[in-house]
Amino acid sequence: MNESKTNQESIISREPFPASRKVFVTGNLFDVRVAMREISLTDTKKSNGEIEKNDPVIVYDTSGPFTDPNFAIDIKKGLPRLREPWIHDRGDVEQLNKVSSGYGQLRLEDKSLDTLRFPNLHNPLKAKPGKNVSQMYYAKQGIITPEMEYVAIRENFRNDKLKELMKQHKGFGYGASIPDEITPEFVRKEIAAGRAIIPANINHPEAEPMIIGRNFLVKINANIGNSAVSSSIEEEIEKAVWACRWGADTVMDLSTGKNIHETREWIIRNSPVPIGTVPIYQALEKVQGKAEELTWEMFKDTLIEQAEQGVDYFTIHAGLRLMHVPLTMNRTTGIVSRGGSILAKWCLFHHKENFLYTHFEEICEILKVYNVGISLGDGLRPGCIADANDAAQFAELKTLGELTKIAWKHDVQVIIEGPGHVPMHLIKENMDKQLEYCDEAPFYTLGPLVTDIAPGYDHITSAIGAAMIGWYGTAMLCYVTPKEHLSLPNKKDVKDGVIAYKIAAHAADLAKGYPGAQYRDNALSKARFEFRWHDQINLSFDTETAKDFHNVPLPVEDAKVAHFCSMCGPHFCSMKTSHEVREYAQKNNITTEEEIERGLKERAEKFKETGNQIYL
Amino acid sequence: MNESKTNQESIISREPFPASRKVFVTGNLFDVRVAMREISLTDTKKSNGEIEKNDPVIVYDTSGPFTDPNFAIDIKKGLPRLREPWIHDRGDVEQLNKVSSGYGQLRLEDKSLDTLRFPNLHNPLKAKPGKNVSQMYYAKQGIITPEMEYVAIRENFRNDKLKELMKQHKGFGYGASIPDEITPEFVRKEIAAGRAIIPANINHPEAEPMIIGRNFLVKINANIGNSAVSSSIEEEIEKAVWACRWGADTVMDLSTGKNIHETREWIIRNSPVPIGTVPIYQALEKVQGKAEELTWEMFKDTLIEQAEQGVDYFTIHAGLRLMHVPLTMNRTTGIVSRGGSILAKWCLFHHKENFLYTHFEEICEILKVYNVGISLGDGLRPGCIADANDAAQFAELKTLGELTKIAWKHDVQVIIEGPGHVPMHLIKENMDKQLEYCDEAPFYTLGPLVTDIAPGYDHITSAIGAAMIGWYGTAMLCYVTPKEHLSLPNKKDVKDGVIAYKIAAHAADLAKGYPGAQYRDNALSKARFEFRWHDQINLSFDTETAKDFHNVPLPVEDAKVAHFCSMCGPHFCSMKTSHEVREYAQKNNITTEEEIERGLKERAEKFKETGNQIYL
Repeated sequence: MNESKTNQESIISREPFPASRKVFVTGNLFDVRVAMREISLTDTKKSNGEIEKNDPVIVYDTSGPFTDPNFAIDIKKGLPRLREPWIHDRGDVEQLNKVSSGYGQLRLEDKSLDTLRFPNLHNPLKAKPGKNVSQMYYAKQGIITPEMEYVAIRENFRNDKLKELMKQHKGFGYGASIPDEITPEFVRKEIAAGRAIIPANINHPEAEPMIIGRNFLVKINANIGNSAVSSSIEEEIEKAVWACRWGADTVMDLSTGKNIHETREWIIRNSPVPIGTVPIYQALEKVQGKAEELTWEMFKDTLIEQAEQGVDYFTIHAGLRLMHVPLTMNRTTGIVSRGGSILAKWCLFHHKENFLYTHFEEICEILKVYNVGISLGDGLRPGCIADANDAAQFAELKTLGELTKIAWKHDVQVIIEGPGHVPMHLIKENMDKQLEYCDEAPFYTLGPLVTDIAPGYDHITSAIGAAMIGWYGTAMLCYVTPKEHLSLPNKKDVKDGVIAYKIAAHAADLAKGYPGAQYRDNALSKARFEFRWHDQINLSFDTETAKDFHNVPLPVEDAKVAHFCSMCGPHFCSMKTSHEVREYAQKNNITTEEEIERGLKERAEKFKETGNQIYL
Repeated sequence: MNESKTNQESIISREPFPASRKVFVTGNLFDVRVAMREISLTDTKKSNGEIEKNDPVIVYDTSGPFTDPNFAIDIKKGLPRLREPWIHDRGDVEQLNKVSSGYGQLRLEDKSLDTLRFPNLHNPLKAKPGKNVSQMYYAKQGIITPEMEYVAIRENFRNDKLKELMKQHKGFGYGASIPDEITPEFVRKEIAAGRAIIPANINHPEAEPMIIGRNFLVKINANIGNSAVSSSIEEEIEKAVWACRWGADTVMDLSTGKNIHETREWIIRNSPVPIGTVPIYQALEKVQGKAEELTWEMFKDTLIEQAEQGVDYFTIHAGLRLMHVPLTMNRTTGIVSRGGSILAKWCLFHHKENFLYTHFEEICEILKVYNVGISLGDGLRPGCIADANDAAQFAELKTLGELTKIAWKHDVQVIIEGPGHVPMHLIKENMDKQLEYCDEAPFYTLGPLVTDIAPGYDHITSAIGAAMIGWYGTAMLCYVTPKEHLSLPNKKDVKDGVIAYKIAAHAADLAKGYPGAQYRDNALSKARFEFRWHDQINLSFDTETAKDFHNVPLPVEDAKVAHFCSMCGPHFCSMKTSHEVREYAQKNNITTEEEIERGLKERAEKFKETGNQIYL
């Protein structure tokens, strides 16, 4: 930890959202309190002087306790361990005396790391011998867990009082089966079927449970990491907090620099969302970047090290087989997945099958005793439009389907990673093949980017593909920042990426017709039409930018409450004119087609008499 | 003109694009010289020491002479009048002694406007009595015009030498019929059929011809205007130059402030792309914003005024009929089109049919003598997700279809405006109905925005919808800036909007399989894989942002030519590793599946002998 920073909390974002408060919805089956954000709205002042109350809008909230002003955050203590009692109540875990991994032990013994170390370490939990603590295991046994009830409540974020606002278009879900109400039992069934997962390591009790599956809200992931041009640990925590603040449902820690073991501990202890990692990155660090020196034993030790810290899901590139590597030889951009290229190098150098593939059952054995989910990595995803949907990519996807079935045999929860760079017309084939090969295991895609030629704007090129594949059935969208292909993202880039992906995910929810998805749109548009500028801003994804943009070119404060649209001025404001039209029509009883016709007839007769004007 | 600005040229963007030069492709039929941008690339340095030349990449260029350092720009003179000889050669126009419109005459006579006036005015051209100078008229007569040859060459922007780079996916065009090569005769046929238009007023000879139609490259429009919080005339010119610089194919001047007549003259004289307007805006100015005081006579005068200045297409909200207004009464956001709300007010106040509808044939009579295109405005487009695809919207669209046939009777070129705010799953219905009702007249949509809840990011919410509807068949996409719904766009917003829409349009071209569309993607991705950073940047849509983003977090200049990806550092660069994999495979003859299998077999036999290791 950087000693020059005496007040480390100061850089952690804590400001509550405007006009918002945390509300907690309690469970019926268990003692769960699901945090949501309630946005209060101002009244509608009608032209006839009447006042109409606007009910507050409740929205899904990924920001955790950081946006709760009633909560005292201390990053040295970590977040409250809300799942701890649920985990212990199941009676199937034991607390270890020390960490199991050799590397973890070495790091603990290293006194020089004391200043860097998270100061409030807990000994890890692990399933009792012979037990399986995965949510899929419970689901298959017919057991509804508190985690399942929690996510059921969370996915029903809609406020049933807002009937008027809930009017929405019937969606089209490409075979998704989303019920009108998400019940704990529905959650259980979806997890048992492998169609959804709750990534929730028993060693990450701080995370608020969330679910990934095509019959739930589309989720987004944000990547952070202290690679290359390194940042400090507290900056890494703030990156995670920052990403969650704007809507990241999970965070992947892709750190590749020094001290990633210690950094990860800080992040997990302070993360309200599940944390994913790519363990092969740390394994590669341990062999000084020499891919050919990787071994199963040290990789296994890394899995255990990270599982006992509380990582909720691992990207494992077990589907990239030796046989697939030649399929990439004529590609325009070869292998663009870091993990994929590392394993391809290992396979080729040793002329051996990928050790993640050959040891896959052992991997499952480890994961199920911590409830770590597997994200089957797409090491051969296309890195450019030219390489999209090629033989290498689909050969690997097929293998991911085989591995899915093996994982499910162990009740290990699985999601499947997808591309990449794909032109729009080839996106659907990715989804269709994924559903077919992987038996509806949740799809988790990086974009896809729909063109290669806009570096600097790849949050946009990829949000287009992400929105479409989310609609087609992808359960989680991994964000891409504007700096993709160019350099490391800063905080602004992280936010830009997150917001672009919130847009993509929400657009997919609307298109699928997810119940209640449209109600925030309806509320915001009603506020817009009624010139309730503050409500419009408070209901938007990025309240800060909306506020800044509204303030900038308008010179006077008054304009902010003016009854005209700021772009056009009073004479050219369509919404102002539209209100005048509506009022005029109501005053003169011409609000229906019949009334129009009656009026026309009357005028026509009058004109016939005078005969001085013709109209259609 | 602001007198304090002594050197007005200084704010006009003139910098050539990096590593680029203007090239001119000449016609076979006519004396046309089509300007394109040639981007030169550096050599590929192979690992074996060989040097591979990379052919330059030629791209479509909307920036006009401003990016040509060999050209002396003087905004007081205006751009070269490249179409003037073509227009005169046809022998069907006459030059008037003075402008025809009463308002235009008044403005000319007003001495107080002298300092503001464009100093190099030409008397307007008009068709000789009984003549029709529209491109559709010529096309239907079987005549290929220089404009048609110009756009044919322009649409074939691809460099046929680049065979390797031209490898691309077969597209899926939803019924589009794009030939392998665009010929002048194909252009003529498309225009004759009404499926494409060349907006090219005979009084705007400065514009470089371009074509709008679903069987051509998808185009984008940028809106500019000096409304409300007004900017100076030279700032307006720079906005147009700026929008074209980044890729706007047409510019709509939506000015609503003072002196719009004079401002428009400056913009048209300096615009290398067609200019569109919404004449009802200026008409409303003339009646001090009182919609009910609008008359056909003053509107007609406004049409003639603008047609003689050289506006290339007019948005005319002739499809919004009195009978449609009641259909909007229960909408969430009423009527959000400015023109639509103005005309709805007029219709209701007078209880009369829209005068643009009743006088539509007279409008066509005016337009065909200048070759002004009509953009049939969607005054009832939905302003929020809730109102998408409603009865009001489609009733108006049906009327637009009727009006299309009337315009075609006069050989007036037509495009049809479309929404707006539409959730993804309802976008295609818009395209399908438009094709059906309007007999394949080109569709020109604003977005659509796929959600309402991201003010500040509506360039993204709308680029998603725009990319999709462009793929489905929309010919031109009207951009939306990040400031939409919040305030007026500044230069950065204009650029952000243009780039987002270049992405959407290009993504649509890729998906439709437009011949050669992928070659810039291929060239950029090859450069990316070969760590040719400068080429990657120079080939990108926004060279400046790509360069800035690449520079920022990397501390040393050396890194810019380093053979690893800047995000990951040398150990974690997938592309670096991928090159190592490829080199290793080539060195060891294991680049095919057969070689892999042979190697495995050899090893298997060896292992059988020793019996000390198993692998799959």
